[in-house]
This record gives sequence, C-alpha cells and structure tokens, in this order.
Amino acid sequence: MITPFDIDAAAARIAGRIRHTPVLALAADELGLGFAVTLKLELLQHAGSFKPRGAFNRILSAETVPQAGVIAASGGNHGAAVAYAAHTLGITAEIFVPELTPPAKRARIESFGAVLVRGGATYAEALAASRERQAETGALEVHAYDHPAVLAGQGTVAREFEAAAPDLTHILVATGGGGFIGGIAAWYGGRTQVISVEPEGCPCLHDALAAGHPVPSAVGGLAADALGARQAGAVMFPLAQRFIGLAVLVPDAAIAVAQRLLWDRLRLVAEPGGATALAALLCGAFVPPPGARVGVVLCGSNTDPGFLSV
Amino acid sequence: MITPFDIDAAAARIAGRIRHTPVLALAADELGLGFAVTLKLELLQHAGSFKPRGAFNRILSAETVPQAGVIAASGGNHGAAVAYAAHTLGITAEIFVPELTPPAKRARIESFGAVLVRGGATYAEALAASRERQAETGALEVHAYDHPAVLAGQGTVAREFEAAAPDLTHILVATGGGGFIGGIAAWYGGRTQVISVEPEGCPCLHDALAAGHPVPSAVGGLAADALGARQAGAVMFPLAQRFIGLAVLVPDAAIAVAQRLLWDRLRLVAEPGGATALAALLCGAFVPPPGARVGVVLCGSNTDPGFLSV
Repeated sequence: MITPFDIDAAAARIAGRIRHTPVLALAADELGLGFAVTLKLELLQHAGSFKPRGAFNRILSAETVPQAGVIAASGGNHGAAVAYAAHTLGITAEIFVPELTPPAKRARIESFGAVLVRGGATYAEALAASRERQAETGALEVHAYDHPAVLAGQGTVAREFEAAAPDLTHILVATGGGGFIGGIAAWYGGRTQVISVEPEGCPCLHDALAAGHPVPSAVGGLAADALGARQAGAVMFPLAQRFIGLAVLVPDAAIAVAQRLLWDRLRLVAEPGGATALAALLCGAFVPPPGARVGVVLCGSNTDPGFLSV
Repeated sequence: MITPFDIDAAAARIAGRIRHTPVLALAADELGLGFAVTLKLELLQHAGSFKPRGAFNRILSAETVPQAGVIAASGGNHGAAVAYAAHTLGITAEIFVPELTPPAKRARIESFGAVLVRGGATYAEALAASRERQAETGALEVHAYDHPAVLAGQGTVAREFEAAAPDLTHILVATGGGGFIGGIAAWYGGRTQVISVEPEGCPCLHDALAAGHPVPSAVGGLAADALGARQAGAVMFPLAQRFIGLAVLVPDAAIAVAQRLLWDRLRLVAEPGGATALAALLCGAFVPPPGARVGVVLCGSNTDPGFLSV
C-alpha cells in the first residue's frame, strides 16, 4: 500500500515537471449551493489533466527506460500525459486509444509527437492491444492507473491541495480506474473524508466496494472516455476500502449542468470527467454535513469548447 | 491622484464581493518564451473580467444610490460587472452598449437582470446616450474607467498580485481607457515597472503619452469591444505619466496567437482584450531585460469559446 512517504518522494521526483495548480475558494452563494467550496484547478495541469503527475513519476522511477520508449493505453488523458512526459524527456511513446476517445484527445496526443494507435471499442480492449504490442517491443508500460508509482504521482495533487487549503473536511474526486483517488486517499489517510464520484454509466469503484473486491462494471455515458475503466485497480482497492468514506453516483445530466455552471460562473472549461466531482454537489448525490468544509478537484479539460457556444 | 491608501480602503470595501483570483507561475519553457512568467488569472473574476472591482468600489463608496439605481456605458465587460454588482446589491441597473458589443457580452449583461440599451456605433456614442438618459433618471453613473473610485477598485488586483508574487520586476497590463492600469500603476508607484499593452487598432494611451495629454485615437480591431476607448481617462493620465514605464502596441495577429496559446497550453479561455498583455511577450513588442521577473494580468474571458473548436 502506498503511503504519504511515497507521495513525498514522488513530489520531489516530479518537481519542476508538473504545474503547481492553483486553488480557488468560492463563497457560499457562488454556485448556489449554500456552502463554500474550495476548488483545486487541476484542469490547468500540463496536457489538460492530472495525469502527468503519475506518468512522470512512473517513468522517472523506472530503473531504465528501454530504447523502445514507453507505451500506454488510455481513453485519452493518460495518453496525452504520457506523450507529454515522453516528449519532455526525449523518449518515444506509443499510445493505444479506443474508438470512444474524442478527436480533441487524439489530437492532443499526436501534438506531443507520440505514435497514436486506435485499438478496440473500449479502454479495456485498447489495453489488451497495447500489451500485445509491448510484448513485441519491450517498451516500458505506463499503466493508466493500476501501478504504485502512478498512484504515488497522482497523490501529489492532494499534498498540494492540503498545503493550500489545510482545513478541508471533505474532498470530492472523480473516479475512473481509481489511480487518482487512490493516491489522494493514501495522502489523506482518513484525516479528511475523501468521497468518490462516478457517473452512473461507469460505476466500477462503487460496484467494487459493494462487492468487497473489484468486479467488471458497465462502461458508458458522457464521461466514459475519461472515467470508463471496466474494473477498479487492484493497487488502489485496499486504499479505497480503508480511506474512502463514500462512493456516490451521478447522472450524466448533472455532469452537463456542472460543465455549464463552471463556464457560466467561473469561465473554466471542464470535460465531463473533469466536472463529475462537482456534479455530486449540484445534484445532491453528496450532501455535506453541517459545518463541513468542502473541497472539489476539477481534474480535466480536454474537450472541444465549442459545446459551450450559445 | 489615487494612492495605495485608497486602494487599501477599496479592498476593505469590496472584500467578500470579489474573488481573490489565483496566480499561476509558469516555468521558462512553458510558453516558449525562454523566461518564466507569472500569470494573475483575473479572467476568473465574477462576471468574467476585472471590472467588478471598480464597479463595487464605485457603488459602495457613493453616499447614496438613487431610487433609479445605477447606469453605465460599456463595451460589455464593465456593463456585465455593473449589472452583476447591482444584482448582488439589490438595485436596478441600466447598461448602454454600442453595436460592436458581441452577443456573448450582451447575454451576460442581461443574465444579471439589467436593462440593456443598444446605443451608437462605439463606446463613446453609448456613453453620450447613457448620459442623456442619466440626466432624465438621476441614476448613479458608474463610469467604465474615468473615476477615482473605479481606479482604486481596479488597483486591488495589483494589491493581490503583489501579495502572491512579491518579487516581480515587470507587469504587463492591457489598456483600454486606462482605469485598470491606472489603478495598478497607483498601487505599485514605480516599485515595479508597469507596462501598458494596447492593440495597434486602439492606441489611446500610447498616443496620449506621446502627445503629453489625452487625445482622440482610432478604435478598431479584434479587442475593440474591450479596449476601444476613444481617449485615455483624465483621472489615470497623471498616474500613467508618472508610473507607467512603457506603452507598447501589438498587432491583432499576436492577440489571436496568445488566445490560442492560452487554450492549447493552459486550457484558459481569454477574450482578445484578456490576451492582449500576453501578446506583447509573444510578438516581442516588449522584451524583458535579463534577470527580469515578469508578471502578466489576464483580465477578461467574456467570449464565445466556439472559436477554439478544432
């Protein structure tokens, strides 16, 4: 199980390579919620999501990087992050994406000079294809979520968030395969309630916690390209059982409302997965207890902003 | 001439009504400039620009607000800010905009419940129309830039910026009528070089400094709705003469490049006027001396983000 010490080490390892993203404190009336919310603007991270934290930590903590470079499967954001990290480090990258990866994410991956391979309908199929290829090339696999170094890297967001906003009692985080929330939960270690938010169409952590172990779940809906893991990660699951207070589900309609609200009130562009955690507050899937001090991580912005045109 | 004491008083007056916007420090390679840049993300302010700072300070420092409420002329951002402030304070607002005000800004003004009046081709004509109307109604005029309380309110952005990034040597600011940069220059008082950036199509401060007094200038180009004052303000001009180190001009093409770069690298949506200050670094209109520590204020985001679609 990864610990805050691993996250400290990751923070030192990736320092200067990731952005220390800002925090924005909103008053009680700003989103119409009746309580204050502190946002971590991780959607302003390099490559448009939190993913470079884990990607850099995974690559930089590997003993060696083979001549064949790195390889990854991704719904898009992790691929963009691995491509960005590889470009920065001067190594080659091959990224496998499923058909549901939107054009904006494919373009982003290619913009960093990676080789893009479209393989399979879902993330799980792209992962299988990438592993066949990895067996041929010997490239370093950078898993999108199920690796300790990835979790430790993602956990650095919590380390920053706590330094900037030390008194939060509840933090809402969107969950896909669980690498992000696993790292965050490991950092807080129960000192702050970490709440998982998933779309109703991608409920893998919710289902895993109910079953007592990771199980295959449905993958669909608005945020499937970002949060559409078929099954929660094995590395994160014990952390989830121990340190995640609650795993809620939100309908796609609430995610769309959250995206629109972030633009209308804050002029922030979030992709569906990036707005999912906030959606839980808007639709009442999570209602903070009286006196709670609530934080929300906005974690991705790789979308075509044309959807916000009036 | 307004002083840092006026700005301290304004900050106390508007506290809790405006957002303390975040600062984002970028490393030397992030924008391809070869030097680090610290951004003040004032484009995340209420109503999508810095303008509520001055609007709140003007209204809250008035001895009384007449039954007729407030009235303002604006290219759009100031109007949205006055409408927002009036809505918050429970008073009525009437906003005059010229024909060049884009639909996104008109919609924003109306979204806060203000009465929108379209009057004249340019800001100067809308101002004249608003003054005729003001003579009838007796409403409190909230000038877009040429009032000491407006300057003092806008200056609070510099007070925040200095607290977050105290060691900057040069700060670039976009200039329209000069209320924003006037307040910023008053805060720094020469301790930090404040550099004015105007589009080539709206050069009123550049022209005023060359002439030794405000003179009528052309109004045109990409950012005319935000920066298209015909003449620099009388209140700000002595501050500009004393405390503004340099007033540079940038072509519209550089502004468009800056908007695109802010989206591609940072996932921020800036309107043309909001990206104008950064454009001066990208096109070389301002080249910082060796060892400079450069800040840029991103000041507006009221635009239809559809232009960023790929």
